[in-house]
Amino acid sequence: MNDFTSTKQPVKRIAESTVRRLSAYLRFLEESAEKGVETISSDALARRGGTTSAQVRKDLSFFGSFGKRGLGYSVEELTSSLREILGLGREWNVIIVGAGKIGMALGQYHGFEQRGFRVTAVYDTDPKKIGTQWGSILVRDVANIERDFAANPPDIAVLAVPVNDAQEAANRLIRSGMKAILNFAPTQLQTPSDVSVRNVNMAMELEGLSYILSNRDR
Amino acid sequence: MNDFTSTKQPVKRIAESTVRRLSAYLRFLEESAEKGVETISSDALARRGGTTSAQVRKDLSFFGSFGKRGLGYSVEELTSSLREILGLGREWNVIIVGAGKIGMALGQYHGFEQRGFRVTAVYDTDPKKIGTQWGSILVRDVANIERDFAANPPDIAVLAVPVNDAQEAANRLIRSGMKAILNFAPTQLQTPSDVSVRNVNMAMELEGLSYILSNRDR
Repeated sequence: MNDFTSTKQPVKRIAESTVRRLSAYLRFLEESAEKGVETISSDALARRGGTTSAQVRKDLSFFGSFGKRGLGYSVEELTSSLREILGLGREWNVIIVGAGKIGMALGQYHGFEQRGFRVTAVYDTDPKKIGTQWGSILVRDVANIERDFAANPPDIAVLAVPVNDAQEAANRLIRSGMKAILNFAPTQLQTPSDVSVRNVNMAMELEGLSYILSNRDR
Repeated sequence: MNDFTSTKQPVKRIAESTVRRLSAYLRFLEESAEKGVETISSDALARRGGTTSAQVRKDLSFFGSFGKRGLGYSVEELTSSLREILGLGREWNVIIVGAGKIGMALGQYHGFEQRGFRVTAVYDTDPKKIGTQWGSILVRDVANIERDFAANPPDIAVLAVPVNDAQEAANRLIRSGMKAILNFAPTQLQTPSDVSVRNVNMAMELEGLSYILSNRDR
């Protein structure tokens, strides 16, 4: 929903929808590589990304010149470029705030670790949860966040707290220097402009389907 | 008054991003109503939806004529219209396939029930889970899906199974008549054109943030 600002050289504004498609292309490229496919057309990428080949070429053109006319893209080269563009060439430290069911499901989701997102800490406000062990991670009191990260904030915080606690938790994270939040609480967080927020709203996803079902039946 | 009845003409193809913004506007309207706000400008809606007021007007224009120039939108009327447009004027039966951590977190998420999405059944393949109770719901064997729903399929299936089981589970759902799937497995499902799929990919959301962080730091 927000536009992102890329500060790489001349500032280009890349829409969130573009970044989503890049992620989708990357997944398709990785699957293709596993099957031994060496080159891929913009048509094939387009089908996978739910878009047109013209859009694929436009999406990629923001970041340089890829592929050869009539030959398509080298799976290996484009995979490597997209990983670099998406910031997947390194490891990111992720903390989870909220040791409830969603937080727990996320903390144990293998897909994160595979892509370089390493969960390094978990926080909660519930005295019954604080001090318990999550695999190798001890659940800590959210009151410690600012002190824990004053010197060295992690890269990304996943916010999986009840809706009424979300803004306060976000404020703590921001005071501790956090610049990126993945928010699962169904509320619009108020954050300074240098903090990036992505929202995952499960009910909103269902609404996308109820919209389709409603409008199809008429 | 809006002329919402105009939406009952042949359905226009509305982009998923538009539907997402409608959901965001609806949330903002509901919060505004709770605060006693009676009218709202397209500017305010735009700020909340992360877009421009021109885009707000364009998004709404697909569905009829709303608001009065210079006066903004009636919060009550626009809320009611958006709920109707998004198919929230009725209850939807939702089943969850996959009684793991993500499925469990979703099944107990209050936000669903509040918006009329009622979880009516849960399925798994694990004999240790089949027959256990989820609140008032008994976890059933996925092998029963086609028989259970042959006569009367539920509206929406949430697919929260491991990636390697996702396509097979989707096939069962499709054979049972399911037309809408919310897919949490990080794979692109192959489905007939009359089946709508929304994908929620947690790793992809984190990539949106790693993209921003990478491109900001350069």
